[in-house]
Amino acid sequence: MAHINENYLKLPGSYLFSEIARRVNVFKDENPEADIIRLGIGDVTKPLPEAVIKELHAAVDEMADASTFRGYGPEQGYDFLIEKIIEFDFAPHGVNLAIDEVFVSDGSKSDTANIQEIFGTDNVIAITDPVYPVYVDSNVMAGRSGTLGADGKWSDMVYIPCTAENGFVPQLPTEKVDLIYLCFPNNPTGTTISKEQLKIWVDFAKENQVIILYDAAYEAYITEADVPHSIYEIEGAKEVAIEFRSFSKNAGFTGTRCSYTVVPKECMGYTASGEAISLNGLWNRRQCTKFNGTPYIIQKGAEAVYTAAGQAQIKALIDYYMYNAKLIREGVKSTGIEVFGGVNAPYIWLKTPEGLDSWSFFDRLLNEVHIVGTPGAGFGPSGEGYFRLTAFGTKENTEEAIERFTKKFKL
Amino acid sequence: MAHINENYLKLPGSYLFSEIARRVNVFKDENPEADIIRLGIGDVTKPLPEAVIKELHAAVDEMADASTFRGYGPEQGYDFLIEKIIEFDFAPHGVNLAIDEVFVSDGSKSDTANIQEIFGTDNVIAITDPVYPVYVDSNVMAGRSGTLGADGKWSDMVYIPCTAENGFVPQLPTEKVDLIYLCFPNNPTGTTISKEQLKIWVDFAKENQVIILYDAAYEAYITEADVPHSIYEIEGAKEVAIEFRSFSKNAGFTGTRCSYTVVPKECMGYTASGEAISLNGLWNRRQCTKFNGTPYIIQKGAEAVYTAAGQAQIKALIDYYMYNAKLIREGVKSTGIEVFGGVNAPYIWLKTPEGLDSWSFFDRLLNEVHIVGTPGAGFGPSGEGYFRLTAFGTKENTEEAIERFTKKFKL
Repeated sequence: MAHINENYLKLPGSYLFSEIARRVNVFKDENPEADIIRLGIGDVTKPLPEAVIKELHAAVDEMADASTFRGYGPEQGYDFLIEKIIEFDFAPHGVNLAIDEVFVSDGSKSDTANIQEIFGTDNVIAITDPVYPVYVDSNVMAGRSGTLGADGKWSDMVYIPCTAENGFVPQLPTEKVDLIYLCFPNNPTGTTISKEQLKIWVDFAKENQVIILYDAAYEAYITEADVPHSIYEIEGAKEVAIEFRSFSKNAGFTGTRCSYTVVPKECMGYTASGEAISLNGLWNRRQCTKFNGTPYIIQKGAEAVYTAAGQAQIKALIDYYMYNAKLIREGVKSTGIEVFGGVNAPYIWLKTPEGLDSWSFFDRLLNEVHIVGTPGAGFGPSGEGYFRLTAFGTKENTEEAIERFTKKFKL
Repeated sequence: MAHINENYLKLPGSYLFSEIARRVNVFKDENPEADIIRLGIGDVTKPLPEAVIKELHAAVDEMADASTFRGYGPEQGYDFLIEKIIEFDFAPHGVNLAIDEVFVSDGSKSDTANIQEIFGTDNVIAITDPVYPVYVDSNVMAGRSGTLGADGKWSDMVYIPCTAENGFVPQLPTEKVDLIYLCFPNNPTGTTISKEQLKIWVDFAKENQVIILYDAAYEAYITEADVPHSIYEIEGAKEVAIEFRSFSKNAGFTGTRCSYTVVPKECMGYTASGEAISLNGLWNRRQCTKFNGTPYIIQKGAEAVYTAAGQAQIKALIDYYMYNAKLIREGVKSTGIEVFGGVNAPYIWLKTPEGLDSWSFFDRLLNEVHIVGTPGAGFGPSGEGYFRLTAFGTKENTEEAIERFTKKFKL
């Protein structure tokens, strides 16, 4: 008899975005004329950069000719792309990587969800709270969660609150932990930490033979000098950290799908008997067995991000969204509502006014100014009482939304 | 302390293709002038069909304009593609599927490797032998293998030999099994089974609440009338079977990456307490949590396969490769060597002559006629004494290779 993986049954429904959609639909039915502006979902709206478009066309043409056609590529990605990644994304920050330490893939969601496979099911998982749900759910599915409590926490996971009270700087856990997910610049809070603050985590990981799973999908939005672009800027991090990067948010690849993961060869996990095993080899084996590479066409498009034109164009894209971020941040702030993020990230995280819970504020925003955002409670227990707005809308919509917002909520 | 998944350490190295490459390189060093023809790897060589190229260009252009740009798509794939899949690949065979029973993805390798995640680790896995190694390795990684014996078999898996002795028709297992991988037309043997023979497996699965994981990646190569194109042509199969399909081998997508998996809603797995759970919901949850969809551009390219031009062009592609298959099959046969497959599949499976083992025949073929093939032993214990040639080369190379082969091996 085929038995299912019963861990799946522990997962509550993907409540957040479906509940948002449900409430928006109810509102639309009752207010068919309302001009709803969506500042909720973390999806980009601007087209792909011209340099990328040009190279995608060229790659499609290559696939039309037997002499340039590409069949199966390396599961790890093509060297032409990996070389550029190392040269542009790491070398300028003093980080040297080898070609076989970078694994190109189809998305950071896949990679951050799949990475736990190379670890034993007995590891204790630590997450910052609020958090990107994929880190949690992929570990629930693998059997590392225990049971879900009434407080919204899984009994076997360690929650590290990041709230206004601690300035959104995660504090070292007092419990035993084995794998830690960190995301900076952070989704959903839009906040980040300094090199000095990150070093505390790297030192902790080294001391305790813990692995840090470092999601830097929003790295391109960093504007401040002391914020690390890569965890490998911190001395010794290569021994304890795996880093995830994506083309989704810097180059608009959310629907085009390309990302990469760095697994340094000196990064070690351990057998039950304490033998150190390089995680690079395990991830390589995982990818070679269960993945057949990112499409050649898409990898060529991603390579174009590193041309001079591509670099200028993605800078313009990021500037566009960061103009929105500033607008949202300053607009919300002007009402007297406490606001965080939006300086090194396209996310603005606000403290709901008048002690409203996240969903009540969602309803007010929708009903009174026809703006859709994301309730902070959807990202974990410590997100309650917070609310996320994103800078990925159009400039015009964002300006209109903030005008409505400031008029209504002026304290 | 971060513990690794020690199941990974059980896996022997990916020996097969690296050992082939090593032996070829030694030969090339010693014979730099030799004109080596590769009939070993299952990768296509013809460019993408024109209709696909045209649509890929159009989709790239859509991504260049804000009004047609696509960000995150549905994890399950776009309806425009799924509707065509159902209409063209299933309806003509009398199989009705709902939109939400088809999941578009980035490759059958990913899907056949990932599907085991929705099942418990206590299931007993059955595989036909020889076999596509991904089915085995993904289950080793998940802890369902036991130990590897000197006979090349994992102690906890059930091997179902498919050899010349049983006409490559798998016989029902006598041991208890829970999940069965079947691949028809078969990789590596190129053989297939009739509807009546497949019905025996479906009936067995229904009787024993077993799930059949049915890989039909080579379906487009079927030429004979009684061979099922889909397992769902067999009555009741929707209750017990998941089917995998790919654009790799019919439309040349090996480097372009698109495939799909069918999970009917009535297909059930069971909890330990015997409750029936629809696998469709579990797979949907898996894909939504760990995958972010196939690139929009690529899905548009795949859709073009179903235009009138696309259908004509993929037929021409398949005819091209099947000409090679026939050439190889008849050429090898003319030497007196026993040969199988090549009629409903692009693979030709031959019995090595003079009782040679697979690797000795590999060496003879390389040294004496400069042809590279794949030793059958690389696909499992029952592959010993067999050898795989593939029809995916160019016509010219295949003709030249078979001329050399028949001259040398004429018995």
